Amino acid sequence: MSAPELALIGLHGLPIIQPGDDLAALIAEALGRAGLTLHDGDVLAVTSKIISKAEGRYAALASVTPGDEALRLAAVTGKDPRMVELVLRESVAVVRSAPNVLVVRHRLGFVSASAGIDQSNVDGGEDTVLLLPLDPDASARRLREQLGERLGILPAIVVSDSHGRPFRLGNVGVAIGAAGLPALRDLRGQPDLFGRPLKISMQGLADEIASAANLVSGEGGEGLPVVLLRGLLFDATDGRATDLLRPPEQDLFRN
Amino acid sequence: MSAPELALIGLHGLPIIQPGDDLAALIAEALGRAGLTLHDGDVLAVTSKIISKAEGRYAALASVTPGDEALRLAAVTGKDPRMVELVLRESVAVVRSAPNVLVVRHRLGFVSASAGIDQSNVDGGEDTVLLLPLDPDASARRLREQLGERLGILPAIVVSDSHGRPFRLGNVGVAIGAAGLPALRDLRGQPDLFGRPLKISMQGLADEIASAANLVSGEGGEGLPVVLLRGLLFDATDGRATDLLRPPEQDLFRN
Repeated sequence: MSAPELALIGLHGLPIIQPGDDLAALIAEALGRAGLTLHDGDVLAVTSKIISKAEGRYAALASVTPGDEALRLAAVTGKDPRMVELVLRESVAVVRSAPNVLVVRHRLGFVSASAGIDQSNVDGGEDTVLLLPLDPDASARRLREQLGERLGILPAIVVSDSHGRPFRLGNVGVAIGAAGLPALRDLRGQPDLFGRPLKISMQGLADEIASAANLVSGEGGEGLPVVLLRGLLFDATDGRATDLLRPPEQDLFRN
Repeated sequence: MSAPELALIGLHGLPIIQPGDDLAALIAEALGRAGLTLHDGDVLAVTSKIISKAEGRYAALASVTPGDEALRLAAVTGKDPRMVELVLRESVAVVRSAPNVLVVRHRLGFVSASAGIDQSNVDGGEDTVLLLPLDPDASARRLREQLGERLGILPAIVVSDSHGRPFRLGNVGVAIGAAGLPALRDLRGQPDLFGRPLKISMQGLADEIASAANLVSGEGGEGLPVVLLRGLLFDATDGRATDLLRPPEQDLFRN
């Protein structure tokens, strides 16, 4: 049988992550238990959820006092005003509000539902929610360096989240943090099969990695929040997930 | 080493596809030469480009007479009026036109640049362009059945294309055809790690498969237009790529 061009290996045996946990240590241990040694060019896709948990990004709804704008949007959306207040604190703009819909531009730059704040897989009861990491590009860089110190190889890191999309149904994995790889890969100047320059010039590499990893980690549980991708060809660069943000003034999809 | 949850194997040795080629026969032969036997649950991601080529979806710009609307939009976009005419014939609505930008709602329902019409990797010179398959869901179903007849296993098929996106930079693989798998996977009712129902309820499974395959096939050449994905867990259903289309009236991302 042909060797796979690309292998995705879910990392089994990670504990449920707690605030303050040393993710690099836990990942290194789990790799060791699985008999896995990092290779040059390996990529680790890590869900934002376990990074948020390790960073203690919890909020208790009971401690949140909604302001006027949160109360107004809660009435529009039918959502918990305290949750709406947290969404607003994590956002720079409301893109759309409607019954059961609150789409915002997150302070990290991307557009998503409810600022990525999540109640699922949070072990503090209904009152506790989990915010996205403070700076997932920095979290990725830190994890890369810490794993490099422990294991002698600097893996590329993609911090993944799952987003809905305009025009298309279904959530897909996207990168909200990246280190050690070109999150946005420039293909300009590469010739096609017949020697002409390629028309498609930029590849959302880190987003495709997050989507691929999502096929293994699944949408739901925290079962396999770290996926090793082996065999991907890329130039090691210092790209970051913010490279993937389309500036609002360059939105080509609406008049 | 742990077995990979998911292996992506690019199919080497396919010839450059010509109009009228029997893709199922060519894929079956290439699988055989690679020593690969199809397993239950295998997915084949196939680029729309080779399906278009096999289906002879070429157009010669010299034979196209642009109409008034094409001439007007060519002036706005700076594009070849004959190319614009072809884009309009393949589309049901113009979403955005601006210098160097022509985004349309394709007759197949999705929103993309230039209706997916491509000049790269087309071996007829600058004058020849390639349209998307007439009905990629039907192409996927046909390929699945033909491979089933030849090989005794019905693989799931994803017909992939590469799209730009609102809000985010970089093209990513998306599914424009699918057969034998839930293109849009319904996760509602599945419990999370702590027994609460999942908030994220729908997964763009076929799009994630197309993005994963794109990591192997690359953005450019026709080198590996067929990628075998082995190890993916899914319920065999008769989903199709049109399941992934968000009805325009359900666009949650703009007011």
